[in-house]
Amino acid sequence: MTISPTLKPQAAASLALWHEMVAQQDLGRLPSILHGDAVFRSPMAFKPYASAAAVNLILTTVVQVFQGFTYHRTLVSDDGLNVVLEFNASVGDKQLKGIDMIRFDEEGKIVDFEVMIRPMSGLQALGAEMGARLAAYLPAYKA
Amino acid sequence: MTISPTLKPQAAASLALWHEMVAQQDLGRLPSILHGDAVFRSPMAFKPYASAAAVNLILTTVVQVFQGFTYHRTLVSDDGLNVVLEFNASVGDKQLKGIDMIRFDEEGKIVDFEVMIRPMSGLQALGAEMGARLAAYLPAYKA
Repeated sequence: MTISPTLKPQAAASLALWHEMVAQQDLGRLPSILHGDAVFRSPMAFKPYASAAAVNLILTTVVQVFQGFTYHRTLVSDDGLNVVLEFNASVGDKQLKGIDMIRFDEEGKIVDFEVMIRPMSGLQALGAEMGARLAAYLPAYKA
Repeated sequence: MTISPTLKPQAAASLALWHEMVAQQDLGRLPSILHGDAVFRSPMAFKPYASAAAVNLILTTVVQVFQGFTYHRTLVSDDGLNVVLEFNASVGDKQLKGIDMIRFDEEGKIVDFEVMIRPMSGLQALGAEMGARLAAYLPAYKA
């Protein structure tokens, strides 16, 4: 996985670890690159989930839900602290595309992780599956 | 509006025109920067809409549907031919966030225009409004 040379070194190191964890489907080291006040912005709900624990729970769950997950284009902001990762995957029999839009701080910690999904049918399938898995832990997480 | 220095000059020129047109809410010059075989990937439907005419119709319609449309982060791929533009807007009483993910060719023409929207409620509101306006022209355009 090529990391953009325009990304700041500490953000690039965190992104490299992220790609390694996703490839291994093991996010065990994610807390080491999450800021304590990290925020997750879900494709389903408008209101963000605030706290590293919530971000960790949601991302750990979603990597189990996606099948055939593959990253494509990587895009970086001029300040070298924001990245967009394009992906495709499927949930059940629904194909979907999406992006992870990640903001890092100067130390390379993830402070904001936002996910968008298309099309509607893929978002609905993902929302139903995530809601079923997370309802007990994050009552507000619904499709 | 700052255009990223990492974007190739002809793509940057097209992006500058895009921002100018969106600010004026007049996409009259859009055909001049659309490749003849341009493709639109809607946030609602999986299947892309292929043809410059369809892309032009959809984008011209969507700028009329969004209220309070504002761009935020800009992200660019290493090859300088792909850009992500983050935005927020509202449709009726629903707030939403989204991205335009645009691929340019070496001449700066738009060859692929993909839109993703979150959250679900915002996507539903947009889909309903777009469906109502485009049903007569693009029968497959539905929420």
